[in-house]
Order: sequence, then structure tokens, then C-alpha cells
Amino acid sequence: MLNPFDAPFRARLAALLPEGTLREAAPRHLAEPRGRWQGRPGPLAAPRTTEDVATILGACNAARVGVVPWGGGTGLVSGQVMPDGPLPLILSLERMTALRGLWPGENVIAVEAGMTLAAVQDTARQAGRLFPLSLASEGTATIGGNLATNAGGTQVLRYGTARELCLGIEAVFADGRVMRGLKRLRKDNTGYDLRDLILGSEGTLAVITAASLRLYAPPAQRLVALMAVPSPAAAQGLLALCEDRAGGLVSGFELISRMGFDFLAETGHDIRPPFDPLPDWMVLMELGLPPLMDGPATMAGIYDEAARAGLALDGVIAQSEAQADQLWAMREAIPEGNRRIGSISSHDISLPLGAIPDFIAAAGERLRAMADIRINCFGHLGDGNLHFNLFPARGHGRGDYAPLAAALSDAVHEMVAAYDGSISAEHGIGRLKTADLARYGDPARLAMMRAVKAALDPAGILNPGAVLPL
Amino acid sequence: MLNPFDAPFRARLAALLPEGTLREAAPRHLAEPRGRWQGRPGPLAAPRTTEDVATILGACNAARVGVVPWGGGTGLVSGQVMPDGPLPLILSLERMTALRGLWPGENVIAVEAGMTLAAVQDTARQAGRLFPLSLASEGTATIGGNLATNAGGTQVLRYGTARELCLGIEAVFADGRVMRGLKRLRKDNTGYDLRDLILGSEGTLAVITAASLRLYAPPAQRLVALMAVPSPAAAQGLLALCEDRAGGLVSGFELISRMGFDFLAETGHDIRPPFDPLPDWMVLMELGLPPLMDGPATMAGIYDEAARAGLALDGVIAQSEAQADQLWAMREAIPEGNRRIGSISSHDISLPLGAIPDFIAAAGERLRAMADIRINCFGHLGDGNLHFNLFPARGHGRGDYAPLAAALSDAVHEMVAAYDGSISAEHGIGRLKTADLARYGDPARLAMMRAVKAALDPAGILNPGAVLPL
Repeated sequence: MLNPFDAPFRARLAALLPEGTLREAAPRHLAEPRGRWQGRPGPLAAPRTTEDVATILGACNAARVGVVPWGGGTGLVSGQVMPDGPLPLILSLERMTALRGLWPGENVIAVEAGMTLAAVQDTARQAGRLFPLSLASEGTATIGGNLATNAGGTQVLRYGTARELCLGIEAVFADGRVMRGLKRLRKDNTGYDLRDLILGSEGTLAVITAASLRLYAPPAQRLVALMAVPSPAAAQGLLALCEDRAGGLVSGFELISRMGFDFLAETGHDIRPPFDPLPDWMVLMELGLPPLMDGPATMAGIYDEAARAGLALDGVIAQSEAQADQLWAMREAIPEGNRRIGSISSHDISLPLGAIPDFIAAAGERLRAMADIRINCFGHLGDGNLHFNLFPARGHGRGDYAPLAAALSDAVHEMVAAYDGSISAEHGIGRLKTADLARYGDPARLAMMRAVKAALDPAGILNPGAVLPL
Repeated sequence: MLNPFDAPFRARLAALLPEGTLREAAPRHLAEPRGRWQGRPGPLAAPRTTEDVATILGACNAARVGVVPWGGGTGLVSGQVMPDGPLPLILSLERMTALRGLWPGENVIAVEAGMTLAAVQDTARQAGRLFPLSLASEGTATIGGNLATNAGGTQVLRYGTARELCLGIEAVFADGRVMRGLKRLRKDNTGYDLRDLILGSEGTLAVITAASLRLYAPPAQRLVALMAVPSPAAAQGLLALCEDRAGGLVSGFELISRMGFDFLAETGHDIRPPFDPLPDWMVLMELGLPPLMDGPATMAGIYDEAARAGLALDGVIAQSEAQADQLWAMREAIPEGNRRIGSISSHDISLPLGAIPDFIAAAGERLRAMADIRINCFGHLGDGNLHFNLFPARGHGRGDYAPLAAALSDAVHEMVAAYDGSISAEHGIGRLKTADLARYGDPARLAMMRAVKAALDPAGILNPGAVLPL
């Protein structure tokens, strides 16, 4: 059993730390973006060094006081907000933002966990390198949080998730021991892969304090196009065509449903998709090509062949960087339209690629038979990752669906399970989906997850209630 | 403490398994390629199904009998041979060779652990797909062993190690519980990454019985060249040039030292490198390009620019698939020359890319000051992975160096540690390097590795003495 963070413990801990490290949590530390979970006012530690993180965890472990690691607060599954149980200490990495090292010739950067993703990207860019992890909240989200949740985003198809971009981590275990693993190595087969075990564990196995990351040579040419497609199956055919024509150089392949643009229009957002009438399905694609390749001819060739094969109905190829950015801005605006309409439930799912067209059709049919809803299905088609979100019919609000929301959500998860998919492709489990994980997860895997948690954090102080229920 | 596999346990286990599952180990199950470790005659189980694997592990766990998983027997660190301690059961996956599924359109294949790597490659090729893991022993090595050791090879630069090619695993834990994780998903953030924890754990945390793997579209054009370079630093400059010119499409970049070809000539191997006189350093490079790229012009442009910049002294670009194969055959023959000369010690190391030229110079100087030796340094330069092997001077045998061998080996490892490198880049720890891991590994990481081992295999039956000492 955990103990609450109380005044005597506060005094003991404060004596071990530099002045100003212990504070009160601000409102931003207690909220999460969808406003469904709320933390309680209480203590926050903002250490400046790994040694201070070690001191904090060691003391909390000895006193059995819970610790909630906090990055940028942008997580969508309430991994960063603990609404009940014994009052925890929030551990914010916001003052650990140093660049530990930059080796452009090696394509490696080492940064502290509190640096924002955008700052990592900028630092790499200034050295002529690309750090490809890219997602909507990158200005606020920290790299430590990205790694702790194994974040995805729009460039996974080519460059992988946060896990695949990480070469090494420095991390502090629950008992305060520090693993110094900021390796700059591409290959290292010396024992168990604790790095990948900690990445994606959402702060429940260790606290990441710094990481070494892979950089890339930026592609010499970026080609971006928005194409109208007759169906999700055609979109997949188009992706196969792109991969054949452009080798491993497809860096983005996003499915867009008409509903996304309808929502933006309905809520007064000024967006002008280039098709009239709007097709039901569109694809935003990006190729990152080397200098000696004829980029425009490659993209035009893909469009011509897709049109001939019936995989594309219409298309716009960006003729400048500004046009490319405009096409991406349309894609990036979709979550804002969703927020303005207000979802009944939101699902970050992944599916075997071959199952996606069937899933979209069958799930839509089943859910619409349950209630008069609208579905906005969009996302990272190349990764099999759909954001499958349910919305009220026009003229209704989400409140009208309150009695049905749980049943609708369950229906989505049941269908995902039936198609061998995942109920959390990139957002993680947090506290929002622990019951779903317990229900749909493989029993042997869950048992071993609990064994690993007990082995690495025997007192259970690290992010209590996240990933695994208390 | 473990118990030996004895007659009463044999009788109990045999009663639980289909006839013919329990056998005697053959000589090939008791040897390892370098002939330095030797197993003892004893029992072997060759199950046909995952359920039989579960039965075997459950029974061995209850009786505290050690189990040594066995794939193709090609491992170089004696992970597959247990020379002492209570007699274990060897668990060979050689009868589990089924194709579980093939989805060419999804770029996914699912196979049982006993299928050879070559058979996985062939099955993919027949479906028009590429499984890029490639290494010298691929005709014998099994995919289960490749995954259990996180094998590397010659295509890691572009496609990653075995870990990065694996989407999911079916595995049996020590207590016989089966994790059914043959996912075909690109993204899945539902809890701890037990897959990557088990991959590379060399059979000490679970037994992999099947895996789902990533396939790729084969590149439309393969361009292969052998270039003479003035130094390892120039070879790295050449790699950077290739990456700029060919985006992420460099699939192989191998450093070759003149010593490798000298050894082949000295031992009567018929090999004709295309340079006379032979340069001290060469690079074998491969590009895998999409159809619309002008491959020959790209490779010729790389060579011209490299020559102008002083990064290449001479070069041969393969003009046919046959010539490309010949160039690769020269690279692949190097280990045979090494075997014929007989190494004093062999090191599979990785280093930060920027440290490699310094390391090669400094380590060579230090070692040659200790003894009159020859060094063959070659390998996967793009991954920072060198095979750094020490050989007798001409006219001497390895026996002449016996009194010095340990000191030479220690000197290599000390220098690797000083340069923040790894003492095992791709071969693993096995039983050969447990003392080195204990000496050079991060203490917190080692402590947590032991905690993980105790959590997942409390009786310690899985591959006793491998990775972590008994």
C-alpha cells in the first residue's frame, strides 16, 4: 500500500534537494487535453539534474509515496494525471532541457527528457539533420514523454515510432539507481533490452531523464499530393503502388474521410479542400526523395498509374513548399474539427493492413445500427493506424448519447479484437484504458507484465494505476 | 538450485509427450562453430507444436530441470551449448518449421521458430517480397535463433536487426504459459514491450515458438561497387556521401581490410580482388534503388564525387547481377580466411561512428606493442560494427600466443569501453562473454536484468548460465 505525500515527508525530502525543487503543482500539471480527468492540488518536484531525480525516487520509494512523472502534459489517456488514491508527488522534467551532445556526422543527438519535441527537431535542423518524429502537439510535448509513451505521428511509415528512433536512455529506477545508457551505438547485443522495456511503459517502470536519438539526412526533395480515392481499399492499392515506385521513401500516407472536412466547414473553420464535390475518401501522401531522382515525374507517374488502375479519382500535387504545407495543414486541422463537434468516443486503433477495408465497412454498419451517429475515420493508413471516432448526428450533442456511449465504445473494441487489432496503436494505456487492456490483452503477457512491474518497482511507486490497475 | 535431467524425470516427461519427441542429442547439438565449447551427451526434446513446448517447460519448471533452447546451432558465443552444471534438456525447435501465414499485400509473414533463415527468405521471394535479414550462416541458422539473439548481418544499415524486422512473437514462458502475440500490426502501444525484451535474451526469458515478420518490396535495382579508400575515416566520408546521394537507400556498406584478402591468398583460396596492388582499405557498398531512379548514373556520380574529394582511390562498379554477386562473394569469403589462419581472439564490437578511425589506429598501436600480431578489422561500417580479430604473425600459430591471449582480449575490451562502445554488437553474450558483461555492463542495468530474469524465470531453468552467470 502506498502512503500519501504528507508534511513530514515533504520536510524530509526538501532537506535532500536544492532549494526551489519542491513546489506546488500548477493547474496545467493537473489537467489533460480532453478534460475528462483531473488531478488534485499537491506537491510537484522540478529537479534540474539526474542525481536529483535519483534522490527523489529513492526517498519516495523508501517512504512508499507515489510518483507521477510529467512531461508536457499532452498525453490523451491520462497517464499524466492521477485523480485518486494516496496523494502522489508529481515529478516534472521541465527544468531538464539541456542538449547533452550533438554529433551531426554520426546522425546522433543526446537530449534531456524535458526538451520539447519541437526543440529537438529545431536543434537537429540547425545542424543540417532531420529528427523525424512529428506529431500535432510537438510544441508542448517533451521528448521524455514521447519516449515514455512510444509516440507515433505522421512519419512512422518511413522512420518508425519513438522507440525505433531511440539509441539509448539514461533512466532512474524506482529505488533511485541510475542506468547510464546514453549509447551512440547502432548495434549492441549485450543483454536484455531494458531500453525498449522502459520505452512505452508510461513512467511505470523507470523515469527517463535523457536519451540519445537517431538523426537522418533530410531528403533532398519533398513531394506532397492529395488524392481522391474511391475507397479505403483503393487507398491501400495506391500505397502499394507508391512503395513499388518510390522504394522505402514514402514518408507519409494519411487517410482522410470527407467527414473530417465536413466537421471543419460545419464549425466555421476556413478550409478549402481542392475537390468539389468532396470525395468520401482522400489520401495525403508525402515522398522524401534523393537529389538525383526526378521527383515531379515520380509523383506524376504514380498519379497517372493510379488513375489508370482506378485507384485515384482526382489529385492535386503540391508545386511548392508552401502548397505542400497547405495540404498538410488541412490534415492537421482535422482534430480541431473533431474537438469542435465533440466526440462520443475516440479510438486510436490499429489493424492488420488487409483487414482495414472490411473493418471500416463492418464497424460502420454495426455502430450505425446501434445509434444515429457520424464516424470520422482517418489517420496513418500506412501503419494500419486509424483514429476511429464517433460523433453525434447533426443537431445533436454528445450528451444525447451518454446512455449509449459505453456500449458504442465496447462495440468498437470488440470489433478491433475480432480483427486481431490493437485498442491503442499510439496513445498508450494510461489510466483510461487499463480495463480494456485487462479485458483484451493476452493473459500470459499480462501476467508477465505484472511480474516485470513487481520486479522493477516492488513498492509500486511509479505512476500508480497507469498501464496496470492498482 | 537446478536438478539434473534423470531417468525418473525422463519417464514422467515422456508420458506427457507424443512418441518420438524425447530423443538423444546428436553430435551437432553438442558443438558450436568455433569448437571451444562442448556439450554433454544427453536428452533432447524435439516438439512439433507450441503446446508440446508448453508441456515440456511446465514439467521442467516444476522439476527444476534446466532447458537449453537450440535453433540451428550457429551461434558464436556458446548460447546453445551448456558444458557443465546439472545435465539439462536440450529443446530443439527443428521440427517446428511450418509457415503460419503469408500476407504479401501486407508485407507480413508468420513462421515457426525452426524454419531456417534461408527458407524464410525463399518463401518471401516466391511471393515477390523481400525478407532482408541476411547473414553468412543463413542456410543453417533458424529464424527462432536469429530472433533470440537479435541477429544482425549485412543489411542492418537499411532494414535494421532481427528485432526491427519482428512484428510479434508467440513464446512460451518458463512456467509453460504461452504468450500468443503473432500480431500483424505496425503499431501497438498496449503495455510493456515484452516482445523486445524476449528478443535478444538468448533463450533465458522465454522460448520463441513462432514470429510474425516484416517483409519489403524488393528494390527494383541493385547497384554494387567495391571501392579502394585511403583510410577508415575516408570510408566514413564515402558513406555520408552515399546517404546524401541515395537517401535511405544504402543497404550495405562493408569495410574490408587488405589483411582479409591476404589471409585468403596465404591459405590458397582462389580470390582475385580487382585492385593491384591491393589497397589497405576497401569498401563494398550496395544501393537498392526504385525503378525511376537512374541507378548507374547515381553510383557513377558517387564514385566521381568521392574520387574528386579524395575519399576513393579506385573503384569497380558491378555491371551485372553476376558481377555484383562476385563482389559480395569476396566479402563473404573473409571469415573463411580467418578460420584458416586461426585467430588468437575474435571481437564483435561496435563503436560510436565518430570514434572508429581513432579506435582502429589506437587499438592497433596498443596491441602491436604487446605482441607481434596481425589484425583483420572488417565489418558493417555503416552500423559502427567491426569484427576486430587478432591473428598470429606469419610463420606462427595461435598456440604461440596462448600466454598472451587473455591480456590481448582484455586490452581490446578495455579500449572498446573507453570509447563508449559495445563488446558484443551482434553475436550476443551467450556463455562466452558473461564475465565481460559483468565487468563492463552498467551496474544498475545488470541489477535490473537479474530482477527481470528472477521475475520471468524464478527457478532459473531457461538456458542456465547464458547471459547472466549462474
